[in-house]
Amino acid sequence: MEFVKGGITAPRGFLASGIHCGIRKNKTKRDLALIFSRTPARAAAVYTTNLVKGAPITVTKDHLSNGMAQAIICNSGNANTCNANGVEVAKEMSRLVGEAMKVSHRDVLVASTGVIGQPLNLEPIASHMDELVHNLSSTGGKKAAEAIMTTDTKVKEIAVEFTVNGKVCRLGGIAKGSGMIHPNMATMLVFLTTDCAISSAMLQKALSTDVQNTFNMTSVDGDTSTNDMVIVMANGRAGNPEIIKEGHAFETFMKALNTVTVQLCRWIAADGEGATKLLECHVEGAADLDTAKTVAKSVICSSLTKAAMFGADANWGRVLCAIGYSGAEVDVSKVEVKFSSAKGEILVCENGAGVDFSEELAKKILLEKEIDILIHLHSGEEKATAWGCDLTYDYVKINGDYRT
Amino acid sequence: MEFVKGGITAPRGFLASGIHCGIRKNKTKRDLALIFSRTPARAAAVYTTNLVKGAPITVTKDHLSNGMAQAIICNSGNANTCNANGVEVAKEMSRLVGEAMKVSHRDVLVASTGVIGQPLNLEPIASHMDELVHNLSSTGGKKAAEAIMTTDTKVKEIAVEFTVNGKVCRLGGIAKGSGMIHPNMATMLVFLTTDCAISSAMLQKALSTDVQNTFNMTSVDGDTSTNDMVIVMANGRAGNPEIIKEGHAFETFMKALNTVTVQLCRWIAADGEGATKLLECHVEGAADLDTAKTVAKSVICSSLTKAAMFGADANWGRVLCAIGYSGAEVDVSKVEVKFSSAKGEILVCENGAGVDFSEELAKKILLEKEIDILIHLHSGEEKATAWGCDLTYDYVKINGDYRT
Repeated sequence: MEFVKGGITAPRGFLASGIHCGIRKNKTKRDLALIFSRTPARAAAVYTTNLVKGAPITVTKDHLSNGMAQAIICNSGNANTCNANGVEVAKEMSRLVGEAMKVSHRDVLVASTGVIGQPLNLEPIASHMDELVHNLSSTGGKKAAEAIMTTDTKVKEIAVEFTVNGKVCRLGGIAKGSGMIHPNMATMLVFLTTDCAISSAMLQKALSTDVQNTFNMTSVDGDTSTNDMVIVMANGRAGNPEIIKEGHAFETFMKALNTVTVQLCRWIAADGEGATKLLECHVEGAADLDTAKTVAKSVICSSLTKAAMFGADANWGRVLCAIGYSGAEVDVSKVEVKFSSAKGEILVCENGAGVDFSEELAKKILLEKEIDILIHLHSGEEKATAWGCDLTYDYVKINGDYRT
Repeated sequence: MEFVKGGITAPRGFLASGIHCGIRKNKTKRDLALIFSRTPARAAAVYTTNLVKGAPITVTKDHLSNGMAQAIICNSGNANTCNANGVEVAKEMSRLVGEAMKVSHRDVLVASTGVIGQPLNLEPIASHMDELVHNLSSTGGKKAAEAIMTTDTKVKEIAVEFTVNGKVCRLGGIAKGSGMIHPNMATMLVFLTTDCAISSAMLQKALSTDVQNTFNMTSVDGDTSTNDMVIVMANGRAGNPEIIKEGHAFETFMKALNTVTVQLCRWIAADGEGATKLLECHVEGAADLDTAKTVAKSVICSSLTKAAMFGADANWGRVLCAIGYSGAEVDVSKVEVKFSSAKGEILVCENGAGVDFSEELAKKILLEKEIDILIHLHSGEEKATAWGCDLTYDYVKINGDYRT
């Protein structure tokens, strides 16, 4: 497996474009993206568990009921959520693309991210559809990645190349998450493309399994958005025998998928609102997988732990506290905690109690931009990882700003 | 029922003192408190649900197994938690008080709050026991209240007077919570005294029932401390017939208890680390009580909602989001949200969607120091209230500060 350029347009047969249509006021900010497969593709998706779901989710779920899709249209600047006419607007977006690309509107998936509660005006989208379509290209991935961003500070695109049954396949992805200037919550959007041949059912299985260990283990501030969506399209152009069951080929595909999704999670977490550090919490030695995950997420979501990391403070007491209230059954007298980064590793808690350690070394380790919080529960063999970021003044500033 | 002065020494037969013994470096800060009942009292307590429990909890639970107590010793500055010798130290604190007051050490309850993971040195406590005992007085409640504070900015003491079976009774309380300069989590400690005559079993029942609607519905930052404890002592000196079962007298007692605990919750929440506002989330119209509580707590704990309140931003989308991910079964298409304060009330969301509202009026309402977030679920008759505070730069500063 190796990383290749091109992001979502790296796999064969995929085109993408990203333009500014006017939903966002800033003319230099792209706000409309289109991803298109030259041939119909198997598709699968996972959505937010928030009971409040953006209108795009309603339409996308409906259009995906047959496991097939050919395009994704996504706008930033308005989430099209909590508006009375939302579903109609989302449907119309799919019709506009369907007409322009000469495909059924039911093969068009819809996504939106941005302000909640303000109706989305279709005019900019309708009047720029020609430009959006005209700009489709096999190198348009980056522009699409830019167009889905809200106030992410970095473009997030990636692609890998791998071999299935002797055929070279590619899987690419773009993502946005965790950064908005206007007071609103973070929305995580991830679009994945592949030219690997795989059935809809196996594609859904791969995605649903993977997200449990990746996007569902990523937290910026604990507030689950109304618009989270991960979509994957597979158009089979690599020419491999279609993956229709578990086995070596499926495992290879899952590994490629996971390589892409883990990297996107790291970038999403690192670009969290106001974040200055990427935090990875690795839990080992758990009696079962649920325990490992529950503990990892609890630590990553702990406000006090996040604030301590911002302050480069080796405050293991807060980590232990987060483990203790996680809800998982843990023998706290066996818990071990270490902090680790490029500058080294340090043991700070053993058997649930403090140990002497060099504050100087701890500070050096924690001043890095990527920190690993290593927890060993000494009660079994299961592991889990969760991704997050530190809690900073800028998080408060971004989210507590007065609206004018 | 009426409020009276005296806090925990308002009920007859209770004495208290609070001194500086040296656990804290700042000589002007009291750090050791003693509460004493002239006669043995029925006692009950509730403790943190964190699996990591401070040593004081282990000892207090053991001493309370007979439902009786006569004293509470509490130090601030060191939580005596996660230390290998913690339990022994806590036991020794109870022995020192037992000797000095000539009561069994098993009638002495122990509490500590402060830094985790640093052994608690008994020397300052032992060498100041005489002074602590000498200072016991029937007006010492305030000094005890000061001595249990860490970086609370306000003393929290209260007392009410009520009548049970024709006898005048009093119930008082002191609390600390939610503020520590040294990087560490908030600990909530609440000590309640009453001269009402009530059996241990009914006292425990009253407390356990009450905390479900009060302290367990209060959150500053979602991090449940390792040392939370609520203790109540009842010495019967009011002379009423002992309350041994449910009925009118028990209800009156519960009402007095709740009047005190609700006020303490409000103060604890309002004094949350860095807080500038008290937030109360009132949920009505829930199908069942669990739903009402789950929703109220989810909103109060939402980082994005808390930040919005700091910014006086009428961001109902975040409130709706928190309701949606709360885990409670809610028909989001029926949800109504209003913001309210001394400056007025404003409807911002109806039937799960936005409504036009005056941003100017909303800003005026939200610039107040006490904000009510009113949620109506239009699905039943149950209600619940949760208390919290806004998320501010100072929260990050207090908890992200570099240790030297």
